[in-house]
Amino acid sequence: MNTGPARGMRDFLPEDVRRRQYVIGVIADVYQRYGFEPLETPAVENLETLQGKYGEEGDRLIFKILKRGEGAETGQADLALRYDLTVPLARVVAEYRARLPKFFKRYQVQPVWRADRPQKGRFREFYQCDVDAIGSRSMVVEAELLAAAADVFLELGFADFRIVVNHRGLLNAILSQAGVAGDDRGAALVIMDKLDKIGANGVREEMRAKGFRDEVAGTLLSQLGAEAPADWLERPGDGLNEEGRAAMQELRGIFSLSKGTSAGPHLDLDRALARGLSYYTGSIFEVRVPDLAGSLGGGGRYDNLIGMFSGDSVPACGISLGLERILVVMGERNMFPPALLATPADVMVAVWNEGQIADLLSLAATLRSAGLRVEMYPEADKIGKQFKYASARNIPFVAVIGDEELANGTVAVKNMKTGEQAAHARAAVAAHIKSVISG
Amino acid sequence: MNTGPARGMRDFLPEDVRRRQYVIGVIADVYQRYGFEPLETPAVENLETLQGKYGEEGDRLIFKILKRGEGAETGQADLALRYDLTVPLARVVAEYRARLPKFFKRYQVQPVWRADRPQKGRFREFYQCDVDAIGSRSMVVEAELLAAAADVFLELGFADFRIVVNHRGLLNAILSQAGVAGDDRGAALVIMDKLDKIGANGVREEMRAKGFRDEVAGTLLSQLGAEAPADWLERPGDGLNEEGRAAMQELRGIFSLSKGTSAGPHLDLDRALARGLSYYTGSIFEVRVPDLAGSLGGGGRYDNLIGMFSGDSVPACGISLGLERILVVMGERNMFPPALLATPADVMVAVWNEGQIADLLSLAATLRSAGLRVEMYPEADKIGKQFKYASARNIPFVAVIGDEELANGTVAVKNMKTGEQAAHARAAVAAHIKSVISG
Repeated sequence: MNTGPARGMRDFLPEDVRRRQYVIGVIADVYQRYGFEPLETPAVENLETLQGKYGEEGDRLIFKILKRGEGAETGQADLALRYDLTVPLARVVAEYRARLPKFFKRYQVQPVWRADRPQKGRFREFYQCDVDAIGSRSMVVEAELLAAAADVFLELGFADFRIVVNHRGLLNAILSQAGVAGDDRGAALVIMDKLDKIGANGVREEMRAKGFRDEVAGTLLSQLGAEAPADWLERPGDGLNEEGRAAMQELRGIFSLSKGTSAGPHLDLDRALARGLSYYTGSIFEVRVPDLAGSLGGGGRYDNLIGMFSGDSVPACGISLGLERILVVMGERNMFPPALLATPADVMVAVWNEGQIADLLSLAATLRSAGLRVEMYPEADKIGKQFKYASARNIPFVAVIGDEELANGTVAVKNMKTGEQAAHARAAVAAHIKSVISG
Repeated sequence: MNTGPARGMRDFLPEDVRRRQYVIGVIADVYQRYGFEPLETPAVENLETLQGKYGEEGDRLIFKILKRGEGAETGQADLALRYDLTVPLARVVAEYRARLPKFFKRYQVQPVWRADRPQKGRFREFYQCDVDAIGSRSMVVEAELLAAAADVFLELGFADFRIVVNHRGLLNAILSQAGVAGDDRGAALVIMDKLDKIGANGVREEMRAKGFRDEVAGTLLSQLGAEAPADWLERPGDGLNEEGRAAMQELRGIFSLSKGTSAGPHLDLDRALARGLSYYTGSIFEVRVPDLAGSLGGGGRYDNLIGMFSGDSVPACGISLGLERILVVMGERNMFPPALLATPADVMVAVWNEGQIADLLSLAATLRSAGLRVEMYPEADKIGKQFKYASARNIPFVAVIGDEELANGTVAVKNMKTGEQAAHARAAVAAHIKSVISG
């Protein structure tokens, strides 16, 4: 029988779970400090809730669940696995609008499923960590989201991350200025996105092949292909249409509001940043580190998506952190606190003989009441074997009550690192172990 | 468009999530104190991993996932949603045996899915909190599991729970003594299980209707229908076969080992306890409170299940806590700490005018650095409206920098409960709020 997990899925053994919970804990703590509240939605949604929201490619990647009972034989599906956390949020906002505050700020850390072809670093079940603010068009929302994201990365120990920012309205205006019609904008951006890899000449050739005039490539390369001059945002935006000038105004807002926040020193304007998803309507952003192709997170403003469920226009802006990528980079950089990876217990209680086990269980209870994590060896066994077991499991102390200790009413405590062993009064064992651990 | 969750599934709004996370947090803390380590498995398993493990009824309730790509049109399923946490554990133990410690002790808190007909209190997505110890036949395992469960309930504030204990070997022996053949034992136990509802005469009638001789009902009622005498376990078990006497020996072990643990005062022998699942091979237990029909958790020893995956016999014992039921009882009894249900933030920063927002964001950053949870009002708005908003959201303090405070370099802090408002030096705001909050 095949005992592995299903294709593209992963089992998380204790050490994996501890790393994941550590990162999720930091993320949740930071978000709470910004007044975001936790939301959870079901793993299973009605198929109609998801279909048509992620484009044709997305629809194909949705895991569909077979009908049950009557209809089971038809092979039809009526339910599906959650594909992202944004569509469920939009549904929730539409459903519970009256119970939610006007400015609903929620974070959500849950798995999503995509029937993608599994690859190195790409899984069919993975976690998203989303934080979104609903209900305001103010750039204060963007500034707060970016500050919270910056706090997350700083608290995890990243110093070298950059947050690149752009605006869909600015992209539209530049494409319009270059003479690219609405329908061709996606294709033009896809080619521009390859600039790093194929260079300016490569871009010119591909554009020509796709039927763009040479002037288009020229304008795009000059506007998007190079870093913007430091004072570019302060310029009047001559040559851009009204949408572009409004976008520049919002970008100026984000940068000036961020001056006093933790995000400020990490922000860069990147006029070429496009972000794939079609639902963005305003600001867009992405978090990057030098040693990772791709991003550690990204997001933007999407003022029309919730309306697909609620019928009215509800402004919204959010950022999604990529838990799996954060874990990969932190692993490669050795960024996890050593204590996290260490031990399943602070002390193991060894069993000298069968008859004393009831007493040892009450010793274990006393140590646990003192806040220690205690592993109880479950059987009487050779004492050397028990020491070996504790050592292999990285448990730093072993407590034994041998014949001598029994006679004296003491407990022998062995420090597995130093090899030292000394007898302690029963009531003093917890304090001794705690003092060495914290020492 | 339907904006509700799928049938039998639930959205958890912030207050729900806080309650759930609080209970899960207590459970995880206690389990860690006993040396149990966290495990997580994928929501999606290969269909063949799950099928045939839960009986015919169980197989029918598994959510099946449609094949993708080639085969998508056939309406066939190859994957399925996790149905419990025990079968995935058995698979994991078989798969990673060499990497796991000899005594693998894991806890796992994850949702499972069952295509049951939804009813009051019965959902299609619900959480299980399982804790299992693999690798030892010693009753120390049972004693530790029961002590950990008792600690969970004590720490959640339950004082009146009982843990009833029985043994499959004892049940088998009593049924055999009563002359019930192996195949009929399930039917006889189902009828005995109704004793509370239909009384002794009802049991006799139903047994007769099912073709059992009257002596069978008589023996079962005398052995299982009444509470065992206090010293029953200490008796030699005359009349029981060898399996029954061995079971009594193990039960004696559990009770005597538990004397010094937190479980001791809560343990009862219940010779009628049967537990539905067919895979139990030894001890079985159930946690009960007076105000709930059904149990808050249950478990037992299952020494053969893992062998279905690994091929060799691996002893195992575990207990599963019912998160949803624990939440229901705690809600009805008002057992949640009031602080938990309270506020999304400690203080809201109000916006006096648009021009000061960058400065207010840096005030918010300062307060957050001091450990406060800060809600930033995202827009300039009438100040009375902002106070109302904070009040509606139960945020206990509002910080404002009006014209006067701006001139003085101070911050006005309004206590929303008392209505008091006073100006504080900017650097003193966090300390003031924290001192009032901590009382």
